[in-house]
Amino acid sequence: MSERDRNVPVRVTVWGENVHEQQEEEVRALYPQGMHAAIAQGVAARLGDRVSVRTATLQEPEHGLTQQLLDDTDVLTWWGHIAHDEVDDAVVDRVHEAVLGGMGLLALHSAHYSKVFQRLLGTSCSLRWRNEGERELVWTVDPAHPIAAGVAQPIVIDAHEMYGEHFDIPAPDELVFVSSFAGGEVFRGGCCFRRGAGRIFYFSPGDQDYPIYHHPDVQRVIANAVQWAAPGPHVPRAVPGSPMAPRGWFA
Amino acid sequence: MSERDRNVPVRVTVWGENVHEQQEEEVRALYPQGMHAAIAQGVAARLGDRVSVRTATLQEPEHGLTQQLLDDTDVLTWWGHIAHDEVDDAVVDRVHEAVLGGMGLLALHSAHYSKVFQRLLGTSCSLRWRNEGERELVWTVDPAHPIAAGVAQPIVIDAHEMYGEHFDIPAPDELVFVSSFAGGEVFRGGCCFRRGAGRIFYFSPGDQDYPIYHHPDVQRVIANAVQWAAPGPHVPRAVPGSPMAPRGWFA
Amino acid sequence: MSERDRNVPVRVTVWGENVHEQQEEEVRALYPQGMHAAIAQGVAARLGDRVSVRTATLQEPEHGLTQQLLDDTDVLTWWGHIAHDEVDDAVVDRVHEAVLGGMGLLALHSAHYSKVFQRLLGTSCSLRWRNEGERELVWTVDPAHPIAAGVAQPIVIDAHEMYGEHFDIPAPDELVFVSSFAGGEVFRGGCCFRRGAGRIFYFSPGDQDYPIYHHPDVQRVIANAVQWAAPGPHVPRAVPGSPMAPRGWFA
Amino acid sequence: MSERDRNVPVRVTVWGENVHEQQEEEVRALYPQGMHAAIAQGVAARLGDRVSVRTATLQEPEHGLTQQLLDDTDVLTWWGHIAHDEVDDAVVDRVHEAVLGGMGLLALHSAHYSKVFQRLLGTSCSLRWRNEGERELVWTVDPAHPIAAGVAQPIVIDAHEMYGEHFDIPAPDELVFVSSFAGGEVFRGGCCFRRGAGRIFYFSPGDQDYPIYHHPDVQRVIANAVQWAAPGPHVPRAVPGSPMAPRGWFA
Repeated sequence: MSERDRNVPVRVTVWGENVHEQQEEEVRALYPQGMHAAIAQGVAARLGDRVSVRTATLQEPEHGLTQQLLDDTDVLTWWGHIAHDEVDDAVVDRVHEAVLGGMGLLALHSAHYSKVFQRLLGTSCSLRWRNEGERELVWTVDPAHPIAAGVAQPIVIDAHEMYGEHFDIPAPDELVFVSSFAGGEVFRGGCCFRRGAGRIFYFSPGDQDYPIYHHPDVQRVIANAVQWAAPGPHVPRAVPGSPMAPRGWFA
Repeated sequence: MSERDRNVPVRVTVWGENVHEQQEEEVRALYPQGMHAAIAQGVAARLGDRVSVRTATLQEPEHGLTQQLLDDTDVLTWWGHIAHDEVDDAVVDRVHEAVLGGMGLLALHSAHYSKVFQRLLGTSCSLRWRNEGERELVWTVDPAHPIAAGVAQPIVIDAHEMYGEHFDIPAPDELVFVSSFAGGEVFRGGCCFRRGAGRIFYFSPGDQDYPIYHHPDVQRVIANAVQWAAPGPHVPRAVPGSPMAPRGWFA
Repeated sequence: MSERDRNVPVRVTVWGENVHEQQEEEVRALYPQGMHAAIAQGVAARLGDRVSVRTATLQEPEHGLTQQLLDDTDVLTWWGHIAHDEVDDAVVDRVHEAVLGGMGLLALHSAHYSKVFQRLLGTSCSLRWRNEGERELVWTVDPAHPIAAGVAQPIVIDAHEMYGEHFDIPAPDELVFVSSFAGGEVFRGGCCFRRGAGRIFYFSPGDQDYPIYHHPDVQRVIANAVQWAAPGPHVPRAVPGSPMAPRGWFA
Repeated sequence: MSERDRNVPVRVTVWGENVHEQQEEEVRALYPQGMHAAIAQGVAARLGDRVSVRTATLQEPEHGLTQQLLDDTDVLTWWGHIAHDEVDDAVVDRVHEAVLGGMGLLALHSAHYSKVFQRLLGTSCSLRWRNEGERELVWTVDPAHPIAAGVAQPIVIDAHEMYGEHFDIPAPDELVFVSSFAGGEVFRGGCCFRRGAGRIFYFSPGDQDYPIYHHPDVQRVIANAVQWAAPGPHVPRAVPGSPMAPRGWFA
C-alpha cells in the first residue's frame, strides 16, 4: 500500500467459528482459548504495534460482525468449517460488501467452503481431501511476493489434513504458494484475489486437528498477508454504483 | 476446443428478457421479432450448420430455462436490462451451476447487472453510463484471440449508449476489446472469464435503442464467442464435489 | 482456434538437439531414432491426418530451421539440453520472430534453458533439479483446459528427473499442470504463455534418461498442445511494426 | 512492500536519453535541465524524504549505469526515444539482470521500444502513433491499485502524441490505466509486469514535445509507481541459478 501511513495500525478482526473448540477436547487441548485466539495472538506477536487485533465469533450477536465493526476493520480473517450454514445471510451480504469496498479478507483453510468466499469467487471451491496427518510442504512459487517475505522455502508442516487438486477456484490473480503432501497430491494453497476494491488471500494450512496456527512460518504468512491485504487510504470503503455521467462531466 | 468434433453443431440458446420490445414501439421497430430473434439470426447466419440455435424468454415458464434445456445447451447468450429482478432465483441457481459445469455464457450489454453474471463474478459489475447516441469504437487489444478473428479494427458503431470505466469486475482472464466513446470515456467491453469448467464472454455493445445486433462486426464477434465458449467433449457438465481421497487412490 | 478448418492439417515441426542420442548408448537404447523421432511419432499417432509432422535437428544446416520451413510450420516443438549454446543466434532470432508472428511453440523439459524460450519470456527460467529417477505425479489444475482433455488425473511417471520450484518464469497466462515428486518438491510443469500472436506451452516431462516420450499421457498432452498452439487463419504470421496512423484513418 | 521500513528512503535513479533536449530548442524550452531533471524533481517533490533521487544519462561513461550504481538503486526510471540503438548491449544486460534480481523499473513513454523493455517482455512492443497534439484522457481501470492513489479520474492531458492499440505486449499482470485520444484511439498506457524478482511499470504519457512531466497527476503516478516498484528487504537482488538439490535438502 504505497500511501499507507505506517504509524497507523492495521485494524484486524479475527473471526472464528468456534465450534470444534467447544465440542472436541482434542481441539481444545491445542487451542485452549479457541483457534481465533491463537490466530489473533500470532498476528499480534508478529506485527506488534503495527496492528490492533480483536476477535469475533459465530456465537455472538450478528456473529460479532456488526456494520460498525466492519467499518472499523481493515482486514478480516475467517476460519469456519462445520457451521458454514449457520452464518446468517445478512452477515454474509455485509461482509461481501465490505470486501468489495476495500476491506481485506484472509480465508483460512476450510473457509474455502464459507458462504462469503464462495460468493466472492463465484465457483464451487471444491477440492479433494484426506485427514491422515501427512507431511505437507508449502512451496513458495513467487519469492518476491510480500506475502512470502521471510518465509522458509519450503514450510514444513509435519502433519496435516491433505487438500488436493483440482481446487475449483477462478485463476488466482497471484499464486504465491503450492503445497505437496506425503501422499503425492498438490494444492494451490496460497492464492491472491482482487475483488472490487478488496484484496483476498486464501491460505490452506489450518485444520483444527493440528497445531498449525502455532507454527512460526504459518504465523509469518498470515502476518504478511494482513499487511498485504490492508487497504490504502485512497480506498473508498464503499461499493460503487452506476452513475449517469453527462458528457464532459470530467472537464 | 481442441477436441471438438466440428461436425457436431454447437447448441446455442439465445435468452432474451423481451420486455422493451413489448413495451416500446421504437425498440420493436428495430427488432420486430424481439432482440433475441435478431441475435439468434445473426449467430445462425454467421455459423450455418456449425450451430443449432433456439431462443428462450423471460415470459416462458421457468423463463424457458428448464434443466433439460440447459443440459442440451452448449452456449447460452443472455440479454436483460429492465427486468433483472424478475428472474427467478431458482433459475439463476440453475444457470450458474450449468456454467460451472461447462456451459458457455455470453453476457451481452446490460447483462452486466444480471443476477447470474454478478453471481459468477462476485463483484458489483457497476459502471458509468450515458445514453446519448455517441459513436463507439471497439478496439481489439488481442488480435490473435479467436474472438477477434475477422473483426474490423476498430469496429465503428455510429451511435450507442456510453458505458465507461470504472467497470467493477475481476481482472478478466483475457481482455479482447476496449471501447472508446465520442465523449472520451473508455470501457473494457470484451472480456473473457473462466469459472469452473465454463467460459464466459462479456460483450458491451447492444443497447435496445440502437440496431447494434444487425451490425455485421457485432454479429461476427458473437459468432466467434459462441465457438470459443463451447465446451469440449471432455468437459463433464457437472459441478465437482469435494471427495475424500484415500491415500494412493490414483495408483 | 475458432475458425480453423479441421480439414487442413496442422503443420508440425519437431526440433531435436539430437546430441545425447548420438553420444550416450543409454539414451539411444530408449530412443533409437532420436528423441525427436519419438516425439514426432507420438504426435502423428495421436492426431493422424489432423497433422503433418516433420523433424529437424541441430546438426542440419541452419539447424534445419530455414525461414521457409518456419513459414510452413504452424507449431514447432523444441527439445534441447546440453547444446543450447550451439544454437545460432540468427536462428534464435528467426524462431523468436516466427512465434511473435503466430507460430505455436512447445518448449519441452530442458528447453526451459533454451535461448528462444528465455528470449520470449525475458526471465532466467532457472529451477531446482535432481536426477535420481523419482516418481513424478502431474496434476491437472485446470480440467476444462483443452490441453488437459483426456489426460489421466494425475499422470503417473514412475521415474524422472526432479524439477522443482522456484521456477523463474513470468506468471503463466494459463497454468494447466503442477507436478509433485517423491522427494516432496512441486513444479509448475504445464504453463501457457501468449506472446505476440503466438501461443507457447511449456511442458516439463521429458528427460533423456527416461522413456517419457513413450508414455501415452505425455503423448496426449503434447498432441493436445499442438492443437491448442496452432494459429487460426486470421493470425498474420508477421510481426507488427509501429505505423503512423493519420487521424480518422479507420473511417 | 509489506515489510519495507518507511524510514529508509527508496533510492531512485532517473535515466534520460538526453538527446532531444540537446538538439531541439523546443524541447529545451520545456525542459531546460533535461527531461530527466524534470522527472527527478517531480519524484522528489512528491515523495520528499521517502526517496533519494539521482539522474544518469546516455552520454556518461557506461551511460551512467555502472554495476555499483545499479546495486545502489531500488527503482530505475527509463526515458529514451531517438537513441535506443546507442545504448550499449552490456549495459542492457546489466539492467536486465538488475531487474530480474529485484530492482524496480519504470519504462516511460517511448521506452516501449527500449532494448531493455523489449528484452524483459519478449515481444515487439509495437503500437500505432500520431503526433498531432490531441487531448489524451488517462482512465483508471483499477481504482484500488496503489499506483492510482490520489490520481484524478480521468487525468486530462490537453495535448499529447497519440499511442494506440494494438500494443504488442504480453498481457499485463495488472492493468491500471487505459487512455483515449481525441481521434478515438485507445491505449493500455499503465501496465504492471513482474519479471524475476522485479516489478516493472510502463506508463505511456511523456512525449518530449509536451510539458507532460510537469503535470501534477503524471508526477503523482510516477511517484506512486516508484513506491510500488521498490523491492522489499526480502528481495535478494540476485538472479537465481539452477542448483542441484539433494533429496531432502530442506529437512
